[in-house]
Amino acid sequence: MRKNLIVGQSGGPTAVINCSLYGVVTGAYREEQIEKVYGMVNGIDGFLKGKKLDFQTMWEDGSLEKLRTTPGAFLGSCRYKLPEDLTDAVYDDIFAKLEELNVGYFCYIGGNDSMDTVSKLSRVGAARKSDIRFMGVPKTIDNDLVLTDHTPGYGSAARYVAETVREITYDASVYDSKSVTIVEIMGRDAGWLTASSVLAREADRRNPALIYLPEVNFDIDQFIGQVEEAMKEQPNLVVCVSEGIHDAQDKLICEYESETGLDSFGHKMLAGCGKYLEKLVKDRLGCKVRSIELNVCQRCSAAMMSAADQEEAVKAGAFAAASAVAGSTGMMAAFQRQEGEEYSIQCVLRDVNEICNKVKKVPLDWITKEGSDLAPAFMEYVKPLVQGAVQLPIGEDGLPAFVKR
Amino acid sequence: MRKNLIVGQSGGPTAVINCSLYGVVTGAYREEQIEKVYGMVNGIDGFLKGKKLDFQTMWEDGSLEKLRTTPGAFLGSCRYKLPEDLTDAVYDDIFAKLEELNVGYFCYIGGNDSMDTVSKLSRVGAARKSDIRFMGVPKTIDNDLVLTDHTPGYGSAARYVAETVREITYDASVYDSKSVTIVEIMGRDAGWLTASSVLAREADRRNPALIYLPEVNFDIDQFIGQVEEAMKEQPNLVVCVSEGIHDAQDKLICEYESETGLDSFGHKMLAGCGKYLEKLVKDRLGCKVRSIELNVCQRCSAAMMSAADQEEAVKAGAFAAASAVAGSTGMMAAFQRQEGEEYSIQCVLRDVNEICNKVKKVPLDWITKEGSDLAPAFMEYVKPLVQGAVQLPIGEDGLPAFVKR
Repeated sequence: MRKNLIVGQSGGPTAVINCSLYGVVTGAYREEQIEKVYGMVNGIDGFLKGKKLDFQTMWEDGSLEKLRTTPGAFLGSCRYKLPEDLTDAVYDDIFAKLEELNVGYFCYIGGNDSMDTVSKLSRVGAARKSDIRFMGVPKTIDNDLVLTDHTPGYGSAARYVAETVREITYDASVYDSKSVTIVEIMGRDAGWLTASSVLAREADRRNPALIYLPEVNFDIDQFIGQVEEAMKEQPNLVVCVSEGIHDAQDKLICEYESETGLDSFGHKMLAGCGKYLEKLVKDRLGCKVRSIELNVCQRCSAAMMSAADQEEAVKAGAFAAASAVAGSTGMMAAFQRQEGEEYSIQCVLRDVNEICNKVKKVPLDWITKEGSDLAPAFMEYVKPLVQGAVQLPIGEDGLPAFVKR
Repeated sequence: MRKNLIVGQSGGPTAVINCSLYGVVTGAYREEQIEKVYGMVNGIDGFLKGKKLDFQTMWEDGSLEKLRTTPGAFLGSCRYKLPEDLTDAVYDDIFAKLEELNVGYFCYIGGNDSMDTVSKLSRVGAARKSDIRFMGVPKTIDNDLVLTDHTPGYGSAARYVAETVREITYDASVYDSKSVTIVEIMGRDAGWLTASSVLAREADRRNPALIYLPEVNFDIDQFIGQVEEAMKEQPNLVVCVSEGIHDAQDKLICEYESETGLDSFGHKMLAGCGKYLEKLVKDRLGCKVRSIELNVCQRCSAAMMSAADQEEAVKAGAFAAASAVAGSTGMMAAFQRQEGEEYSIQCVLRDVNEICNKVKKVPLDWITKEGSDLAPAFMEYVKPLVQGAVQLPIGEDGLPAFVKR
């Protein structure tokens, strides 16, 4: 008997989360064992409220194609953590709803917390001897999932950071007076995205001259010394810092100034280490300083999407759908980098239980010993992920045209 | 006798200030009366320190072409105000240096303050019976120069704002909970750039639902009422505000926050009006709120350059060089919109003395009577200025390649 597939999106959006959705949906329609393809609206949270859609019309009229160049999360997202107690009644509700829709395949696109959802549902499924197969499709600009070379979403965010920081270095160097420009980049626990700012540095230029990741303890006095030293050779200094930089006592630099709260997952909410360092440099060195927070455009900019990331996100989605049909459950579609001169990846399956609630950090030997720059090994790693510009379809108003639910 | 032309850039950079430079330089090389083309490095300030370059090599090797897609200010910029006293010794110095270089034509690319420089130099020139001709080439993302339909630089910044705010509206709508996203846009005295955010609104959508310009007094209570009202129809609200919004007593909204006290360094809190309004909405309405400051990327992003703006900036530069040769001095190359269905502009000459130190604001009848939206007349005005995406040349590293001094 043919079964249906349902797919959902969860957590923060990326430039290519809809590419993965496109991959899952088109992959599913190519499978003979799959009849209907549903989307959960607003993830598992919306699904519990009965919010869903059928992709049939979009598949037939070709509008599905537009998902590949639409930022945000087409299906809508949620931040909903399933209970730790696997006998909770909410699981009865979910499984009843899935069975009612004749769902045999469940794909969930998201980061760490979403893999936690896939892990729990697959464990509940196993306990219930359900034949529904639960698959995870990775998505995060943070690139912090373990057991995969990288995650879809990271390449585009890294390209955004690289292009934008390069433009900022040109903006920063127009006056001949000394100045420091501090760029604050997303990344709480892992510095992957901040690290990608090194791509902005041109062969014959120094900026961004200093790059600080949360993987290394941040020391205020050492930082000021490094700024002073770097300004001797580069009067218009551009410095990139991760929002999550912290001191040796694990106290966040942004906490030096502002209070923090917790979000619904118990994460610390961060803002403002750039602003703090701006004031610190002004106070200690007395030169012109400004800080720039790159903010949400890092994750929602379709305009600077990486073609490599776009293609790989589609691939991961299609692989997840195909793997579910082939019998996998409780697995995530991961990337394995192939040996050889030329960059290529292969999709592989990895156990979600070994992925969720873990964080992959930038290896310490990819950071220079002064803690303020990246080693060549990182450049080799990141370069292929940001390659290729994507042309966005333009609408009647002359601006990029996206697809809406 | 053939004379030389010198060109400089002044004030903040834009995406197309180098296009105007390209226009001046290539226009000059096409003139038989012009022998050499020089660039002042860091404007009139750098010129006084003897900093200049010769464009000959770039003209011969074709690298001049890259100016058309390079952001920032290729020649470097300055913020240098010439003395009001036109008998000041600095003018002797400038004219001596110009005569030494056999300069007959002087072009200065910039905004209000730069037109002030052109005005003063042309008046000093007239008093000295100098035959050097001084021309202004407009440049500002603020679009606040009088006697011209618009200014080069505005179209690209407006396209950046429109594209980015559209992407933000997609990012803002992924969760189904109520939320307010406040986007703070550059523009202290004139709201042209903030107004361009209306272009982000799609035909079948409401966001950005509220837009506030400095042309209209901002009232906190009215604002909260408008947010509440708008949220009834659009639960994920996107609001755009100009950094220069102020109350009926002309007090800036960003100064409301300064009153909260001094930071740990004893400085006034310099966060913008967006941050203040974020806290206000959270306090009064209790819903999820965030604020985004678009910051310098508005003016330095080559990636979202408008093709129309690029072309017009070149045209303005070439027209200024040609007009100088034809005998004009103390004039600015301005744009006059032609009558007719199809958009077209014509370059015309306008007296810099009537331009400098004036500010052109958004006409009040282009703002809706509630003060929170733009009228269709503004849409008709702004739409042609942002048309066309520009392909940036890509370097070996896969990122946009710019030209450096």
